[in-house]
Amino acid sequence: MIKEESNILIEEQGLRDGIQNISTIISTEKKIEYVHSLVDAGIKRIQIASFVHPKLVPQMADAELVCAGVKKEEGVVYSGLVLNERGVDRAVEAGLDHLSCSISASDLHSQKNARKTLAEARKAFIEMVKKCKDNDIVVRGGIQCAFGCRYEGKIDPEHVMNMVKQHLDAGIDELALADSTGMGNPASVEFLMGRVMEEAKGIPVVLHLHNTESKGYANAVTATRVGVRIFDTAFGGLGGCPFIKNATGNIATEDTIKMFEEMGYSTGVDIEKVAQLSWEMQATLGEPLDGKIYKLIEKKQSSRIK
Amino acid sequence: MIKEESNILIEEQGLRDGIQNISTIISTEKKIEYVHSLVDAGIKRIQIASFVHPKLVPQMADAELVCAGVKKEEGVVYSGLVLNERGVDRAVEAGLDHLSCSISASDLHSQKNARKTLAEARKAFIEMVKKCKDNDIVVRGGIQCAFGCRYEGKIDPEHVMNMVKQHLDAGIDELALADSTGMGNPASVEFLMGRVMEEAKGIPVVLHLHNTESKGYANAVTATRVGVRIFDTAFGGLGGCPFIKNATGNIATEDTIKMFEEMGYSTGVDIEKVAQLSWEMQATLGEPLDGKIYKLIEKKQSSRIK
Repeated sequence: MIKEESNILIEEQGLRDGIQNISTIISTEKKIEYVHSLVDAGIKRIQIASFVHPKLVPQMADAELVCAGVKKEEGVVYSGLVLNERGVDRAVEAGLDHLSCSISASDLHSQKNARKTLAEARKAFIEMVKKCKDNDIVVRGGIQCAFGCRYEGKIDPEHVMNMVKQHLDAGIDELALADSTGMGNPASVEFLMGRVMEEAKGIPVVLHLHNTESKGYANAVTATRVGVRIFDTAFGGLGGCPFIKNATGNIATEDTIKMFEEMGYSTGVDIEKVAQLSWEMQATLGEPLDGKIYKLIEKKQSSRIK
Repeated sequence: MIKEESNILIEEQGLRDGIQNISTIISTEKKIEYVHSLVDAGIKRIQIASFVHPKLVPQMADAELVCAGVKKEEGVVYSGLVLNERGVDRAVEAGLDHLSCSISASDLHSQKNARKTLAEARKAFIEMVKKCKDNDIVVRGGIQCAFGCRYEGKIDPEHVMNMVKQHLDAGIDELALADSTGMGNPASVEFLMGRVMEEAKGIPVVLHLHNTESKGYANAVTATRVGVRIFDTAFGGLGGCPFIKNATGNIATEDTIKMFEEMGYSTGVDIEKVAQLSWEMQATLGEPLDGKIYKLIEKKQSSRIK
């Protein structure tokens, strides 16, 4: 996937992690337009839906419709998030061939969010991966709260490394570590990701970062030092909101790309085009997003998003 | 000043850089209370005023009154910013013994902001430093826009290094590089600050960072890799505003400290106390500040700021 070490691959998560907790429901048509526009801007990987219970995450209730409406481009990966076997079934039915299966590193978080102990979640994860493989799905195996949990605090890196080994044993094609709470810091990211990169033995490793505590971009840069080259981001820094306490925005696509390109990395993504989508989303939500770079780029009069 | 490499010294700039462009005038009494409260929180260095023309920066018109009202604590450095000889005279009269003399690395920025070419600014700088030394003032010599200028774009590191040498030749006691525009990136910061640290030969070096492009904290962490241990910050990330285009907030005191302390550095500053001041300033300004950490810390009912 990564041809050279100087390339950085961005997985756009704005239309999944970015909007899943936002009360303003984005129409299916708009979501599809956003996906098309992001791909037009050069995004090569994009998470377009999650297959969770619509009552729990109303924003994702139209997952199948989004998948059906997106015109897939050659060379672009369209992925979905699944948290149980029922989700895998739905995603397969919806025609996706790249899925993120994810469980939490925090027992308390797992019990509260997924109503499963870590042991139960592990068992379910192995079944999810098996079902994916049976359906020729590329599986990204994720670990949520890998750097900290709001309920449990710091998470022991040894515990995370055990999960990494179990994930790899389960037969995943890619590994993703998520700092879901933004509690990671450059030292903990360098320590853990260094060990993860070694353990992964060439299997692609993704880092999913939030800027909740202002450390997101520092963590991203630090991760490149130990070889990480794939990052989840959300256009405009969607997912955070300056008016909601503890709102946890993803690192912004534009801000991440600008920083990395200035440092000499290539991403192939057109920031100006992405910024127009962030302006559009700001207008839809009626408040500024967390990202800074789009605000430095002039908003164009006409938008390609209806 | 720095006893061990694991100590980081914070120079609080919220009451100077943080508020100088804000239209809401903070009362002299409030400014003094903020200074006392910040020192109570463990801040050991604080810029409390700038001696510029009151018509150009109305917020700083009470510089002398603030200096007269602040009760100075042993072991704390109270500094002021001066941009010309008249400023030095005023600051000396006001009883300060630590001054920041600063000029721009960008010719166009210097002409627009200080109405001086670089050559004229250099000449004035040497005179300012001389006047400071004659008055037993500790001089911090600063270079604004060291990593980029909104008018000129990128600034040549060779040019900055020449200025660094000239600053050192002028007899400054400390050197400060400012990324006034937030245009620096971890690669350019590492490159330039590495050279600066070498050239400074033990003279304290300060890095002044803005988070305009989301790179502020990444730049701070990267600078520690080449030995920088003194950082300018502003409580709450004052200086930026989510509603004003191109607003350039300083990196936030709380966010910077939390990141560094998690990484194993010591700052001696109580984040909880600083956060209460950010809450107070948010109430005064009527809008959220740019920093994220204070928003994660509960606002206490009573405040020590009147």
